[in-house]
Amino acid sequence: MNDPVFSRIAIIGVGLIGSSIARASAEYGAAGEVILYDASPEVRDLSAKLGLGTIAPTLEAAVSDADCVIVCVPVGAIGAVAAGAVPAMKYGAILTDVGSVKSEAARALHDAGDGRIHVIPGHPIAGTEQSGPEAGFPTLFRGAWHILTPLSGQDEAYQAATDQLAAFWTLLGAKVEAMDAGRHDRVLAITSHLPHLIAFNIVTTAFDLESVEQGEVVKYSAGGFRDFTRIAASDPVMWRDVFLNNKEAVLECLGRFSEDLAVLQRAIRWGDGDTLIREFTRARTIRKAIIDAGQDSSAVNFGRNSPEPEEDA
Amino acid sequence: MNDPVFSRIAIIGVGLIGSSIARASAEYGAAGEVILYDASPEVRDLSAKLGLGTIAPTLEAAVSDADCVIVCVPVGAIGAVAAGAVPAMKYGAILTDVGSVKSEAARALHDAGDGRIHVIPGHPIAGTEQSGPEAGFPTLFRGAWHILTPLSGQDEAYQAATDQLAAFWTLLGAKVEAMDAGRHDRVLAITSHLPHLIAFNIVTTAFDLESVEQGEVVKYSAGGFRDFTRIAASDPVMWRDVFLNNKEAVLECLGRFSEDLAVLQRAIRWGDGDTLIREFTRARTIRKAIIDAGQDSSAVNFGRNSPEPEEDA
Repeated sequence: MNDPVFSRIAIIGVGLIGSSIARASAEYGAAGEVILYDASPEVRDLSAKLGLGTIAPTLEAAVSDADCVIVCVPVGAIGAVAAGAVPAMKYGAILTDVGSVKSEAARALHDAGDGRIHVIPGHPIAGTEQSGPEAGFPTLFRGAWHILTPLSGQDEAYQAATDQLAAFWTLLGAKVEAMDAGRHDRVLAITSHLPHLIAFNIVTTAFDLESVEQGEVVKYSAGGFRDFTRIAASDPVMWRDVFLNNKEAVLECLGRFSEDLAVLQRAIRWGDGDTLIREFTRARTIRKAIIDAGQDSSAVNFGRNSPEPEEDA
Repeated sequence: MNDPVFSRIAIIGVGLIGSSIARASAEYGAAGEVILYDASPEVRDLSAKLGLGTIAPTLEAAVSDADCVIVCVPVGAIGAVAAGAVPAMKYGAILTDVGSVKSEAARALHDAGDGRIHVIPGHPIAGTEQSGPEAGFPTLFRGAWHILTPLSGQDEAYQAATDQLAAFWTLLGAKVEAMDAGRHDRVLAITSHLPHLIAFNIVTTAFDLESVEQGEVVKYSAGGFRDFTRIAASDPVMWRDVFLNNKEAVLECLGRFSEDLAVLQRAIRWGDGDTLIREFTRARTIRKAIIDAGQDSSAVNFGRNSPEPEEDA
């Protein structure tokens, strides 16, 4: 077992990410004690039943003796949680988050700060399509990137706190990177936010056809559609907050996407096969780069065809 | 071992699908003998080395004694292959295909027909992102739908041939359905063709940003983008032909998709969270329906998080 990086952490918001941090902290000995709080009494009860750690009755009780407070709520709720937490936190403690939009999260956390604590926004590039305290598991962050977006113009104590937070995530198995919040938001707009928006949208389009086509959208989804439905099953509230809080970068990506799509649409309408071949061929390069970078499995068809089905002909 | 449905089949075009049919036919005893032909000498040599069956030196030699000829080439090439094959085929034999667009495939096959043979178009809803004779494997069709789009106004012998072809695909593990070609093309436009087009397009959009963002698109692709790159790695020629030959249905779906996307775009721009929540919530229903229908695995994150990584902290 490792020496814990923090004697006590407080996890505020017990969903997929919060419950995974709790499980991973225990599994890898990254924190001596894990305190959890969720605004929902049902989630608190469930978290207790799942044995995720010590459940605090209030936000203030959860954070008051913590060395590190990790806010794991949708981006739109971070400000309110931070405002409630900060006055109860002890001097020199760390306040971080796991929000998918960092400029807005940094602003919300910073506004709540009072100079006594270290505000260090963060974002684990990890998740699944499931939500809630039961969805978490200890290996979620293993091999995943964790991006910290430290505030600028801070002192040495802040740098030491940032190193400590990086050590915590490293123990959980993550690869830690530091980045400017604005750059994070532009990069994630294309690698995460736009793909989710497109996935949500194609499901919407299919849904409206579904009724006329008598269930065939589901039946024949193996033709490609099912790949999109996985990320489209992600938490609606979390994603609403992502889009509303990274508006500028998402609208910029969406504009480019629509321009590019218009080119393909025109090529189809006018029978311009050369344009289609040229665009489609580039796509193979990027898939290979992703696999070579260890960012996805090389198993074909997401491994759906293996192991072989057990029934035999 | 089963009694073979056909004494001899001829597979024309040895890519992912053709080589998988060859392997599955041998594995499940669906055909007594498998003859293969590909227009490319390199592919013929490779097919021989892979032991996929008897390699014929010409198209005519491949089909001349076959009970069933399966054309496994891109949709745009079906007509030329069928025109070359039909005169050499024996009386009463079956001519089928595996093209993803059935109205155009049916027209191409039918135009090549001479009344002596049975033209029965077909489409396996199965595949991977890989291409070529080495990509095939015998279990590809197990549990997958195989759609036949028989021609209308045919006689009893044609019906018997259709039943025989259905029995062949059933032995390969597929679930066989019959459907009108036009309906097939409208259904597949939304379940397969539009998803591929969107996947190709988002990769194009990311590609143009990639250079400015210094490789970060690949690095942080686990945020969602990587899900799209799998189907975007599919064969460019096959997909060019799909879009050019199912133009009407694809453009109709694309029009609806763009309308729906404009609604989400406007909601983001004006901060209309209620619209986002409403659309995102529907998506969960369809994912559940797909899993319940056995059309995708329920393993979260496409099983990427399991089995657990072997290294330990």
